[in-house]
Amino acid sequence: MFETLREEVLEANLELVRRGLVLYTFGNASGIDRKQGIVVIKPSGVPYETMKPSDLVAVDLNGRTIEGQLRPSADLPTHLILYREFPSIGGVAHTHSRMATAWAQAKREIPCFGTTHADYFCGPVPVTDPLTPDEISSDYEVNTGHAIARRFRGRDPESTPGVLVASHAPFTWGKTVTEAVHNSVVLEEIAHLAFYTITANSDCDQIARALHEKHFYRKHGGTAYYGQRKP
Amino acid sequence: MFETLREEVLEANLELVRRGLVLYTFGNASGIDRKQGIVVIKPSGVPYETMKPSDLVAVDLNGRTIEGQLRPSADLPTHLILYREFPSIGGVAHTHSRMATAWAQAKREIPCFGTTHADYFCGPVPVTDPLTPDEISSDYEVNTGHAIARRFRGRDPESTPGVLVASHAPFTWGKTVTEAVHNSVVLEEIAHLAFYTITANSDCDQIARALHEKHFYRKHGGTAYYGQRKP
Amino acid sequence: MFETLREEVLEANLELVRRGLVLYTFGNASGIDRKQGIVVIKPSGVPYETMKPSDLVAVDLNGRTIEGQLRPSADLPTHLILYREFPSIGGVAHTHSRMATAWAQAKREIPCFGTTHADYFCGPVPVTDPLTPDEISSDYEVNTGHAIARRFRGRDPESTPGVLVASHAPFTWGKTVTEAVHNSVVLEEIAHLAFYTITANSDCDQIARALHEKHFYRKHGGTAYYGQRKP
Amino acid sequence: MFETLREEVLEANLELVRRGLVLYTFGNASGIDRKQGIVVIKPSGVPYETMKPSDLVAVDLNGRTIEGQLRPSADLPTHLILYREFPSIGGVAHTHSRMATAWAQAKREIPCFGTTHADYFCGPVPVTDPLTPDEISSDYEVNTGHAIARRFRGRDPESTPGVLVASHAPFTWGKTVTEAVHNSVVLEEIAHLAFYTITANSDCDQIARALHEKHFYRKHGGTAYYGQRKP
Repeated sequence: MFETLREEVLEANLELVRRGLVLYTFGNASGIDRKQGIVVIKPSGVPYETMKPSDLVAVDLNGRTIEGQLRPSADLPTHLILYREFPSIGGVAHTHSRMATAWAQAKREIPCFGTTHADYFCGPVPVTDPLTPDEISSDYEVNTGHAIARRFRGRDPESTPGVLVASHAPFTWGKTVTEAVHNSVVLEEIAHLAFYTITANSDCDQIARALHEKHFYRKHGGTAYYGQRKP
Repeated sequence: MFETLREEVLEANLELVRRGLVLYTFGNASGIDRKQGIVVIKPSGVPYETMKPSDLVAVDLNGRTIEGQLRPSADLPTHLILYREFPSIGGVAHTHSRMATAWAQAKREIPCFGTTHADYFCGPVPVTDPLTPDEISSDYEVNTGHAIARRFRGRDPESTPGVLVASHAPFTWGKTVTEAVHNSVVLEEIAHLAFYTITANSDCDQIARALHEKHFYRKHGGTAYYGQRKP
Repeated sequence: MFETLREEVLEANLELVRRGLVLYTFGNASGIDRKQGIVVIKPSGVPYETMKPSDLVAVDLNGRTIEGQLRPSADLPTHLILYREFPSIGGVAHTHSRMATAWAQAKREIPCFGTTHADYFCGPVPVTDPLTPDEISSDYEVNTGHAIARRFRGRDPESTPGVLVASHAPFTWGKTVTEAVHNSVVLEEIAHLAFYTITANSDCDQIARALHEKHFYRKHGGTAYYGQRKP
Repeated sequence: MFETLREEVLEANLELVRRGLVLYTFGNASGIDRKQGIVVIKPSGVPYETMKPSDLVAVDLNGRTIEGQLRPSADLPTHLILYREFPSIGGVAHTHSRMATAWAQAKREIPCFGTTHADYFCGPVPVTDPLTPDEISSDYEVNTGHAIARRFRGRDPESTPGVLVASHAPFTWGKTVTEAVHNSVVLEEIAHLAFYTITANSDCDQIARALHEKHFYRKHGGTAYYGQRKP
């Protein structure tokens, strides 16, 4: 069961390796079958090099294993909260990619300085508030999900497809797990661009709002004209 | 038709990938057949991995498709303005290469600090003025071309073969599309060198004018003596 | 003799090359057979490309060669002190990996800014005090080992599996030589993350203690729940 | 004639490419046959990808071509001055490698902050004084050689096997062209280490003199004990 989703989720996880976003067994990506209420996710601490579709773990939205022999990723509870809070998403990716993680550690949101960022995020990349000691000591991964959701109150997860968890690292999402991983790759690039921008000009203004929206809506929504017409 | 130009333009676009200057479908390069008034450009949002010569789009100087089934790059209007304003160029390349884009986002021209830069650019790499909200909201890509052309009033595009578009990214050009891409590669390297130079010495002087011109004219014009004599 | 250990130590040394942590003949890794009191280490100044298991040198804990034709690594005396002072370790690795070495040269300990660091080091990565001129002029490599051991008085080498030797470079260790090299790779990544963090936010606070311990004990000790249950 | 030297010089030039120190046709390396007074050097502006031993140019110490159809590197006169001024060297390499060039552009000598540097350079990496406009306008490449030689008055080129030419880039040398290129690779690494060191600690002290000499003489001269005994 869930053959196609397993294969797509495996491929998305391997793409994290190919793009240089993960070291050893770091990182994880998952996809959801909304109709059946099933999430497929990478197993915890298993090397990417030998991972097979059947190693992935299928769980329900309460985190109970439905299919699979291995323990799911320790970050599964964070993924599950995101699927519940953001009903339009179909995939989640988490990495410790170098420069996005540095911004998360610096506890600075990534301002939008240019069109590369504006093509994907309709605003800065937000950073969560720190967890309290209580939130850390029990249900830590669940509370990480809640911290993300709190940060997105009044914000559309489709036009801001990722977040920096303070003192930790980025999570991204998308309509599919493939798109979630794509957004991880782009976020890492945006993080590099912004890092070198503030180093070269510490007083740099953010992009003008008109230009920001122009680029975002060149690629998104009904007025988009980037790419080929969908058949 | 335009077989040779199609192949050269495809090869130049693929060179952007091989040199690490583009991510996913970012970037685009075009070449012009001046006699026939035809520009061949990359299609919009098509993966480089599977791109064939026939996927490239041939347009006239008003942007009307003459040959090709796909939509041309969304940045085509900028290329067309450059071909009109700079009659001696034969190719244009646009990337979001990491360090040149960071300077563009920082809205700082790249000063010439050394001979690597001086070998290619006879002065700093200029940065455009920001577009007005009106220029952004209508004919944005055309107005990007005009902003570049304005920045080059009184400046020779042959001795300054590229520009940083403020809050966006670089454009480069050359006698051919191959040379335009070569200049994108060199501009990215120059941007790295200058970034590390100002970080190591924030008060660094620009290169002496005599040394700047010595190096530029060692490679360019009638007194050049770098390389082999052309047969 | 010591075939298995030789092969594991060779493989660990080659992993340093594959991970980009060493240049030319820089770096060295060793493993110990505690029962027999034998350490196997890389030979000094021999290219990695052609190194064979039989090129590795087996020495006793006084550094006398027991098996092998080549001179052992010049840093052997430092390894031997570490094996004596830290009885629970089974392998040691030394590199001049770029960013960890920069921190060692800057003589700054690496603060813990995030969970990637906390997953491996239960505190900052310490830096040794400088050696005195006398300690440098005689038994330099032995005294390097003592400087590390002094820095670890009152500190558990298992929860801090590496150190920066001031003005020099990192040493890491682990239960096996494979784990020691793994920790070298992770230390280099942590050093990168921290470098970009302090550059982006020079006043950045260290990670909250609760979060630091949460992540360390998610992976270590009896309450760990990262990875698969050991069979 | 000069077959062996041609092959060694070609191989050394190709090593510059493999190590990522040159872009396109940048850079050049040469070797000298001291008995015959012949220097073999890379031709000017020829792609590395297709270079053959017979493309290299053999010249005498006055720069007259003795063998070869192509123009020698435009930087040949600098190499020739170095061979005349430093009688003990057998090879010279010149690159625009990224970080060493940034230091050259910043016109800052590279202080010795650690043992990696001390293993190769017995002091900082010096930077030349700027050339005067007259020195630039005539015999520029010869005068570049003289500027290096002036900087080495009272300094031993064997214990300082390279230099940064102000506003330009590094030159390195060695007993052979292979060693000259090796020193270019190491200089680029040293330049990276020092760059990140000063960024992490802008007040960083240089390495203690005792440690500097300990490391240099661990690898050089009669008391060296790094590596294997020469048979």
